Amino acid sequence: MRHLLGLEDLSAADITRLLDSAEVYHGVGVSKPKRDDLKGKLVVTMFFEASTRTKISFGLAVRRLGGDVQDFSSGGSSTSKGETFLDTARNIEAMGIDAVVVRHGSSGAPLALTRSLQPRVSIINAGDGAHEHPTQGLLDIFTIRQKKKTVAGLTVALVGDIAHSRVARSNIHGLTKLGAKVIVCGPPTLVPNEVKQFDVEVAHDLDAILHRCDVVNLLRVQFERQRGAFFPSVGEYAHLYGMNGKRLKASKPDVLILAPGPINRGVEITPDVADGPNSAILEQVENGLAVRMAVLAETICSRAGTR
Amino acid sequence: MRHLLGLEDLSAADITRLLDSAEVYHGVGVSKPKRDDLKGKLVVTMFFEASTRTKISFGLAVRRLGGDVQDFSSGGSSTSKGETFLDTARNIEAMGIDAVVVRHGSSGAPLALTRSLQPRVSIINAGDGAHEHPTQGLLDIFTIRQKKKTVAGLTVALVGDIAHSRVARSNIHGLTKLGAKVIVCGPPTLVPNEVKQFDVEVAHDLDAILHRCDVVNLLRVQFERQRGAFFPSVGEYAHLYGMNGKRLKASKPDVLILAPGPINRGVEITPDVADGPNSAILEQVENGLAVRMAVLAETICSRAGTR
Amino acid sequence: MRHLLGLEDLSAADITRLLDSAEVYHGVGVSKPKRDDLKGKLVVTMFFEASTRTKISFGLAVRRLGGDVQDFSSGGSSTSKGETFLDTARNIEAMGIDAVVVRHGSSGAPLALTRSLQPRVSIINAGDGAHEHPTQGLLDIFTIRQKKKTVAGLTVALVGDIAHSRVARSNIHGLTKLGAKVIVCGPPTLVPNEVKQFDVEVAHDLDAILHRCDVVNLLRVQFERQRGAFFPSVGEYAHLYGMNGKRLKASKPDVLILAPGPINRGVEITPDVADGPNSAILEQVENGLAVRMAVLAETICSRAGTR
Repeated sequence: MRHLLGLEDLSAADITRLLDSAEVYHGVGVSKPKRDDLKGKLVVTMFFEASTRTKISFGLAVRRLGGDVQDFSSGGSSTSKGETFLDTARNIEAMGIDAVVVRHGSSGAPLALTRSLQPRVSIINAGDGAHEHPTQGLLDIFTIRQKKKTVAGLTVALVGDIAHSRVARSNIHGLTKLGAKVIVCGPPTLVPNEVKQFDVEVAHDLDAILHRCDVVNLLRVQFERQRGAFFPSVGEYAHLYGMNGKRLKASKPDVLILAPGPINRGVEITPDVADGPNSAILEQVENGLAVRMAVLAETICSRAGTR
Repeated sequence: MRHLLGLEDLSAADITRLLDSAEVYHGVGVSKPKRDDLKGKLVVTMFFEASTRTKISFGLAVRRLGGDVQDFSSGGSSTSKGETFLDTARNIEAMGIDAVVVRHGSSGAPLALTRSLQPRVSIINAGDGAHEHPTQGLLDIFTIRQKKKTVAGLTVALVGDIAHSRVARSNIHGLTKLGAKVIVCGPPTLVPNEVKQFDVEVAHDLDAILHRCDVVNLLRVQFERQRGAFFPSVGEYAHLYGMNGKRLKASKPDVLILAPGPINRGVEITPDVADGPNSAILEQVENGLAVRMAVLAETICSRAGTR
Repeated sequence: MRHLLGLEDLSAADITRLLDSAEVYHGVGVSKPKRDDLKGKLVVTMFFEASTRTKISFGLAVRRLGGDVQDFSSGGSSTSKGETFLDTARNIEAMGIDAVVVRHGSSGAPLALTRSLQPRVSIINAGDGAHEHPTQGLLDIFTIRQKKKTVAGLTVALVGDIAHSRVARSNIHGLTKLGAKVIVCGPPTLVPNEVKQFDVEVAHDLDAILHRCDVVNLLRVQFERQRGAFFPSVGEYAHLYGMNGKRLKASKPDVLILAPGPINRGVEITPDVADGPNSAILEQVENGLAVRMAVLAETICSRAGTR
């Protein structure tokens, strides 16, 4: 595995291997000593969309494995001088780097990099348009496996904006490959027709499916993207699709609540649920480090000797 | 001492211990070798207000003690996606960190962090609203002690915008605890009534007090905060409260001139005074590193074994 | 050599020594191990104009020589609070640093720093107004020497906006000192009268000189600077001065095509030429690292023992 573009491209065995590896990396640099898997390696983070937590998570993962990280932030950069995305990337590459962690508003931008840069540079997708966000998918699945001991046979609901969510797509691919049943649930305007091509159940009434769910993953309402009116109002969204104390009572007692964050308290989730015992929101963040270390080590170090 | 929220909370002995410690750290990484007090520790700087020098000062202090630093800049971050301040902090914490150095426009934001984050994470206030800026207070007092050999018994004037100045408050608390006499001096609009609760003398005429002062600390006129008209004009402010060559001549010959900076030349201080022999403005910057190293080491390392 | 302000100040021997040194540093941290020339040294990058690639290039150069780098970005900084450029620099200096890499919109800003900061701090010009960009000039010349084995006796055309180009000026000084013949070629509005003081040939018709050129260096059309109408249209500029397949055929078969980038594809250069065998655009980026390592090592380490 030289690159990580999406979970759609991986086999169940690939995903399981990464999850097993992430268990070994869990706690490195915190409860376990730093490692030197990436000693002498330089990873560039190229984020063309706002993100702090994902960029910091990748950056810490690199440093806890002994590598160097260089952030390329597009603000005040060459791209504002008319340079193309690929020229910028080729220029960064020419400085001698080992991997690019890229977030871009256009689906397929990471794939384009694998075709334009030299094969010795690993490309890791940190979110591309509405396509995939594979490390988020992996950390969600890692958290499910950690809490439920298995993934196969579980029923997992993805709730909210399925249409615009790269997180949803990565979850769908990863979970179904590992044998989970996936229900996508949201207002008809936010559940696209294309989703029917995947092996998922489509629902529009959250209350009707809750009792069957082992895991509920609450996708973020992306206010900053939705200028159009995909749902009548925030209040109505919360009323129909928000997880709250009453809905939690109607769920299985050990239902696992996930949210990729940043969360909108009172919209997709109420504070009592977000901070309650069924929520694993902060474990997700912690697990994100472990999963990203596993991905970085596998993609970069599997090429040992190629350079 | 697990956190540093303000000098108001510290005893005279605490402050003296930090100043003594700062003397040991003075010059580390420049004229003395780097140290490894913070080896394996990760400090996050979270600045929700513009600041470069304070952030860089803390960052260099961490690195010169062998620690890692990760900046969390609020621009382009999760907070723009609607996440609350405390959720952002909890997320950063979940990545496995040892301390947060926080600057925030709201008084009490660092205190809120100590209540929301796990006890093993040290919180260091780098300026919160008009409340306190304790490391600035410490470096001012360190510089006074360095130049005057003592603090007790000195008369120190704080000149300018007392009402909006967290630097003034930290100085008032620290200096009075160490036995200095503090005079606050500024236009009536900028000297609040609440200041009378402290053990300070209030003055409005700088020329009337100058001959009694051992130290004059010229607070910055914060043009970027004062849309309202707290004084008639910049020229009038400089005329009444600016330190210039004439006023320097009317002062004690060995008067010590401080300014927390960034300075507005020609407003609170004229260039001849800023660059003259009585000024310790650049020593303040150098001492800031020493004081911050002392604070970081004490807050983070005093918990050795808690993790 | 304590500072690097411009190639105008250097002798041919100085330039040759830096180029020879850059050959030793070429590939350090990529195909050769990291070095520790700058161990314990702190370099600050102060960029007051947008730049990503140059800043990253300097930053990586410092780290590959074992030094520490601290970026001072002017956005959200003290300068927005009314502090002068020199006060900001003096404050950064007081934190204990070894070198400043500075980019500034005003010609002469780096020179001003050498007069204001202590002599033990090296100043390296990363581009000042329309004055010089010496490391860009050095990397262009390094690339020419690498490809052509020599510089003396070559004919080098600098094409485009000579008037506003600090890259042009650094190339003119460096190339003529090393014995190359320089032709400056561009529309009369972009070729200033002052250029006649240098030992260069002035041309306005690219097609008339192409057959004589061993090297063609295509300066970037700086759309972000040229609000005024220095040429009728982008299309006309490309028609008259852009390098394309047809012009390449009219050139010497082994003509070397350079462009300092970021390039505007279809304006100063067409994609087939930019990505073709005569182009050394990406080697320029790689060589930039080597040249910057040589400059950093020479300016900072030549003062060993002064501190």
